[in-house]
Amino acid sequence: VRSYVDKLKQRIAATGSRLCVGLDPRPEGGAAEARDMLRAVVRETAEFAAAFKPNMAYFEAMGVPGLALLEELLGDMPEGVPVILDAKRGDIGETQKYYARAYFENWKVDAVTLSPYMGFDSIEPFLQYEGRGVYLLAVTSNAGSADLQRLALAEGGELFHQVVGFAARAREHGYPGSVGFVAGLTNLVPEVLECFGDAPLLIPGLGAQGGELSAWAAADRTAPDVINVSRGILYADPHLSYAEKARNYADRIAHHTGSHA
Amino acid sequence: VRSYVDKLKQRIAATGSRLCVGLDPRPEGGAAEARDMLRAVVRETAEFAAAFKPNMAYFEAMGVPGLALLEELLGDMPEGVPVILDAKRGDIGETQKYYARAYFENWKVDAVTLSPYMGFDSIEPFLQYEGRGVYLLAVTSNAGSADLQRLALAEGGELFHQVVGFAARAREHGYPGSVGFVAGLTNLVPEVLECFGDAPLLIPGLGAQGGELSAWAAADRTAPDVINVSRGILYADPHLSYAEKARNYADRIAHHTGSHA
Repeated sequence: VRSYVDKLKQRIAATGSRLCVGLDPRPEGGAAEARDMLRAVVRETAEFAAAFKPNMAYFEAMGVPGLALLEELLGDMPEGVPVILDAKRGDIGETQKYYARAYFENWKVDAVTLSPYMGFDSIEPFLQYEGRGVYLLAVTSNAGSADLQRLALAEGGELFHQVVGFAARAREHGYPGSVGFVAGLTNLVPEVLECFGDAPLLIPGLGAQGGELSAWAAADRTAPDVINVSRGILYADPHLSYAEKARNYADRIAHHTGSHA
Repeated sequence: VRSYVDKLKQRIAATGSRLCVGLDPRPEGGAAEARDMLRAVVRETAEFAAAFKPNMAYFEAMGVPGLALLEELLGDMPEGVPVILDAKRGDIGETQKYYARAYFENWKVDAVTLSPYMGFDSIEPFLQYEGRGVYLLAVTSNAGSADLQRLALAEGGELFHQVVGFAARAREHGYPGSVGFVAGLTNLVPEVLECFGDAPLLIPGLGAQGGELSAWAAADRTAPDVINVSRGILYADPHLSYAEKARNYADRIAHHTGSHA
């Protein structure tokens, strides 16, 4: 079984794109409207997508029909494009087991975002799946990321360094799953970037959230990092097609990364 | 509009119970089997319940029929029993707005559990609802609670103290929602308990997780704390009815609290 990291590397090599297309439909129009839109987005942007990332919040906000829509979309994703389910779940291990089954076994997604607040044992049930991955929230793109994530610890370092340390613990346990991190573009200064080593990053904050790519692009990253754009493709510039917007973002990212794309 | 805290106080006064009945159906049997079981649990235990707490993980694990079941149960809860939706969500404010609408507007639950890792701005959308409440994960009942929550900070105190500080920030902003905390019984030593002041606690860890009530009962708590039992009522001691198990737990908690119940 190929690891999640290898699948993602292969996809990036095949497309030359590090764009993750975020599937965050505004729920106001209901599930039928969202269905038409998202089917068009997936169809038109797949060739420019390193990955797709549906955020469960927007589907839950449409109630049961929203979840049925998500299930339908997940069952019908284009071959070869990894799917990252943005769930940010975190619970005791006994409970996480059930989330892991729902996402990896029933929905067969490639990776899931998780919240690390409850500790290493809360992510272990997800690490036991070969060929799958998790992205742990490390430093996020919102202002509130300063409240806990960037706090200095008495033993040295910042709180999110402890989260980054979960990757080494996963290796020590010999778990087959890949461990990556969510790292918001607005927080990606050089001293933050260097903490992540070769762990793959899922980077939100480009487009609507206004982050800049330069520090990330200047770092000597070897991991298959992907940059997420959601609203910038789904809702910005309605005179452009989804394909044009996705291609524009993929090009903009590739321009920054230059040789190490 | 009565605050969530007042609703809960009134319910505790009316029933003499601080038992929160956790609705965590094992998903293996499917949604139809879970439906029969949970309808029986709700019907039989309501008179002994200070609150009901469905954990979304177990419903999601049953797929779309599981979510439809949760929606059906939420639409049919007995009058006057507060419902705490155990979701542990945490995302950027823009996204949390949609979770808040899904839970407070569509499903009309009284309170929601949230993960604080992304900071204060990630919980603000939930605080704007009058008569509703949130429980922020503070110190949980699993061993992994030591990994981040109990870490000592350079500025003094432990990480979870910062989370507890979100309650004061909510008051400063004048938000109408109530702020409580999830505090696992296994972590409830006196020096932890005293941090919470009069914020209401949702306390897991009794029963299957093996925590003891004595330190909590000895503290001079004035808040409408509730103690959650899930597996201990749904799956333990199958020779007893759900009603008997709920009454036994409610009595055991009341016995400990004595005068301050």
